[in-house]
Amino acid sequence: MIETPPSTPVQHPCDGEAWILRVGVLVSGNGTNLQALLDAQAAGVLGARVVVVGCNRADARALERARAAGVAVCLADRTQIRKRIERQALLRAALLEARVDLVVLAGFDEILTPELVSTFAGRIVNTHPSLLPAFGGTMHAVRAALEHGVKVSGCTVHLVTDKLDGGPILDQRAVPVLDGDTEETLHRRILEQEHLLLPLTVRAFAEGRLALPRPAVYVSA
Amino acid sequence: MIETPPSTPVQHPCDGEAWILRVGVLVSGNGTNLQALLDAQAAGVLGARVVVVGCNRADARALERARAAGVAVCLADRTQIRKRIERQALLRAALLEARVDLVVLAGFDEILTPELVSTFAGRIVNTHPSLLPAFGGTMHAVRAALEHGVKVSGCTVHLVTDKLDGGPILDQRAVPVLDGDTEETLHRRILEQEHLLLPLTVRAFAEGRLALPRPAVYVSA
Repeated sequence: MIETPPSTPVQHPCDGEAWILRVGVLVSGNGTNLQALLDAQAAGVLGARVVVVGCNRADARALERARAAGVAVCLADRTQIRKRIERQALLRAALLEARVDLVVLAGFDEILTPELVSTFAGRIVNTHPSLLPAFGGTMHAVRAALEHGVKVSGCTVHLVTDKLDGGPILDQRAVPVLDGDTEETLHRRILEQEHLLLPLTVRAFAEGRLALPRPAVYVSA
Repeated sequence: MIETPPSTPVQHPCDGEAWILRVGVLVSGNGTNLQALLDAQAAGVLGARVVVVGCNRADARALERARAAGVAVCLADRTQIRKRIERQALLRAALLEARVDLVVLAGFDEILTPELVSTFAGRIVNTHPSLLPAFGGTMHAVRAALEHGVKVSGCTVHLVTDKLDGGPILDQRAVPVLDGDTEETLHRRILEQEHLLLPLTVRAFAEGRLALPRPAVYVSA
């Protein structure tokens, strides 16, 4: 289930390379946020390296993006592995094996198991297409914001805890909601900001520049 | 209880002046949002006229601002009139007598009685120092946002219904939350945006340019 492209040798702690934050990314869909991370890495501005991509859908466009960038992939296919707890056990193993320092949820469409959350406590970030705490707890945050009639929405990068969409906020960006916006046009505008914000947040995490909010519910196990 | 400065003749429907939206403003405190409306009016960009200011505190700085601008004042003093329902009955009478088309809550620190809300249904706007629906239902929205750790906050101008801070959103502006912000510094940054947004919203209301959201819970009685 875990592919390691031959072009990407596994990095060992003693292989002589400078230390760099190792990032695992979990995806389910199109993977544009993954692409933003990979592009930032290629441009030398991520301050981190994406070392593994975990995915729960075999037809996800994100998989192609990972492979094109020569990143190891772990597929925990929903159609093959029916139980979420089993899929995530596999993904957890892949993340551990790849020795990731940070897990990024980039459009991953499952709620994390407590085991996965506690394994990487304080080191899992998610990006959510609203200005949390508004429109949390839904897979349809953009639609919910439109239906509520807000004039400003945006995106939030936050730490993942066992409280759905309720972990400490790391950073946010606002976008205007325009007359005539549909779910698609608004989501596209929000995604543009996510694509800027997510790499910046990973870099800030790598450089220890994040002002983590009190209380420290994200304390590592 | 209702002062009409001699310099401000009461406008009659047939007094030959062009029609202009008549605004009543309810205040409790410093009155900087009232001042923003008065300044916009003086500059000729409000598209409306503040015809009466209602207040529930005798020591409110907002009263001085109203008087300095020659606006009629109705004081329903909390220390003199202990029951909210009686204070608001007085304010309601003043608003009706002044024939206001629009009521603006500009830092008014009471929840409106159902009678007042239904009298001006769909024609009461409030300004709230957060991006609703986040941090609604509290008099301490700025503190709540800071404590939640958001990185973006802002202000919301919305229609008032019987659902506290839950009426249709008319417009919003975002502001960044900065490292080291206190409740005071953040509130000041939000107020700057409110002072811009509130007059713009009143003008949009006057010009019929507001895209009122569905569903039409604000239908006028």
